Amino acid sequence: MHSPIQLQQIIEEAIPNIEYPNHPKDLYEPIRYIMSLGGKRIRPVMVLMATELFTTEIHKALDVALAIETFHNFTLVHDDIMDNAPLRRGKITVHEKWGVNNAILSGDVMMVESNKHLSKVDLLVLKPVLDTFNATAQGVCEGQQLDMEFEQRTDVSIGEYLEMIRLKTAVLLGGAMKLGAIVGGANSVDADLLYEFGENLGVAFQLQDDILDVYGNPEKFGKQVGGDIIANKKTFLHLKTLTLAQGDESDSLTSITVDQDIKVNEVTSLYNKYDIKELATAEMDKYLTKANQALDSLAVADEKKYQFRELVQQILERER
Amino acid sequence: MHSPIQLQQIIEEAIPNIEYPNHPKDLYEPIRYIMSLGGKRIRPVMVLMATELFTTEIHKALDVALAIETFHNFTLVHDDIMDNAPLRRGKITVHEKWGVNNAILSGDVMMVESNKHLSKVDLLVLKPVLDTFNATAQGVCEGQQLDMEFEQRTDVSIGEYLEMIRLKTAVLLGGAMKLGAIVGGANSVDADLLYEFGENLGVAFQLQDDILDVYGNPEKFGKQVGGDIIANKKTFLHLKTLTLAQGDESDSLTSITVDQDIKVNEVTSLYNKYDIKELATAEMDKYLTKANQALDSLAVADEKKYQFRELVQQILERER
Repeated sequence: MHSPIQLQQIIEEAIPNIEYPNHPKDLYEPIRYIMSLGGKRIRPVMVLMATELFTTEIHKALDVALAIETFHNFTLVHDDIMDNAPLRRGKITVHEKWGVNNAILSGDVMMVESNKHLSKVDLLVLKPVLDTFNATAQGVCEGQQLDMEFEQRTDVSIGEYLEMIRLKTAVLLGGAMKLGAIVGGANSVDADLLYEFGENLGVAFQLQDDILDVYGNPEKFGKQVGGDIIANKKTFLHLKTLTLAQGDESDSLTSITVDQDIKVNEVTSLYNKYDIKELATAEMDKYLTKANQALDSLAVADEKKYQFRELVQQILERER
Repeated sequence: MHSPIQLQQIIEEAIPNIEYPNHPKDLYEPIRYIMSLGGKRIRPVMVLMATELFTTEIHKALDVALAIETFHNFTLVHDDIMDNAPLRRGKITVHEKWGVNNAILSGDVMMVESNKHLSKVDLLVLKPVLDTFNATAQGVCEGQQLDMEFEQRTDVSIGEYLEMIRLKTAVLLGGAMKLGAIVGGANSVDADLLYEFGENLGVAFQLQDDILDVYGNPEKFGKQVGGDIIANKKTFLHLKTLTLAQGDESDSLTSITVDQDIKVNEVTSLYNKYDIKELATAEMDKYLTKANQALDSLAVADEKKYQFRELVQQILERER
């Protein structure tokens, strides 16, 4: 079995070898650019991990892994336009570097490139691979739509929020796992269990992200603590507090920020008063439990599941 | 054999029956909206026409026809954003109605919907269908990129222009024909000949469009004569004149428009002086000849080719 680090190296080596046309230059350069920005390559690694549960021939899944990574980066390019984001992984975003129109179009052609990767899988699994990928891609678009809509709404429920992060983030992790399983030759029960594992892990991951924004170790990540608070972002913590706060307590959650430190302190105190960190952690644990249950049910030898348990553990121990 | 009108009716009846999710509403309503705006449905009709050359079971190709029409409408949604266009087929554009971000995302999900339609074809032809579709989609994106770049450039050659319209417009007609042929069971020689037919027809169609913008009958189409001239659009006529005009004659082509009528008259006089209409028509005829040659070589009975000859004829006789 390869370790996740080894699988990441396989992905890192494969990405610069993807052949894109050279012309029109400004259509394809943004693709090479965004694909080279790095990241942990968690989604394609999950594809290969899932494949390796069922076969040693993980090269069979490399095209699917690249399809997933290309699709993920396509969503980053278009999301950054929508969010008007100047930076991605510390580098200037595609739309800032090449212009919005160019970024729309390079994103579009990345979707085509994803499909080209996918179409190379063994014909025996082509149809289920396409079905899984298309359902995944559709879910991710729906999640982004809901995320945009929630910014304009003041009545987002916790249930709606959980559904949004499921679609926007978790479905792609589930899809990556399921695609890897299918290519590896898993039966549909096991493929679906790996989907369950990935999806629940994804929701847990996002909830942990919400928690770490407030309670993470700033030295570990160098990122401003309370960024979500300053942006009045409707995270799990924010929405949960809205359901518990009394009187005008919740005003600080949605107030316009004058002094950022004061606002972060105020909101954090409110979170502390209502044990929001513990409530959010309990919610996260529910999803991690479901992820572990899916893993328990999976018909592969226990020693092969080791790295999947590690993934769960890494989320629990993650610091920001 | 069905007539093109009958095939168009089959498409028109199928489109409202495409099932999209209802939620998120603002993600899927733009798709229903743009798909319902009509048009001649020329691309999906071409899919079905090509299929019917090889089999009577044209229903086998309906999903591919809908994939092509969905993809075409996706490009319209995104192109309209890039062109900042207020109207499409006389109706308000998607990005004006729902906002740019929503239009980007609805377009993205239309690409997924296209792929969902495609994935329903018979497994026996799935791989060549995907390969043809992906190559086509990629070409269309490249054509749009070149079109955008040409707006900023002053040194576009006629060869570059012909390559741009080939990619932006003609490749999709060729792809539609080839896809229909593949689903109909054509061998690869015939499928490629139909691609040749469609692509050459597409270039001719665009050249005729360039000609009709200046020399069309305004009463037939209700569209302003000389729209391309007023916009300084780098059409075949414009670029050809640049290569022939002497001294400062060509200044009128690129001048900033003060009085639209004066500009249209000036440029049209220049076109007339250099027989640009005849030169453009001769260029168009070259492509129509190539389209007809591809049709001649096609290994199907002559009487089945009748409607394809008609298509060529319709372009020749088109008035704006």
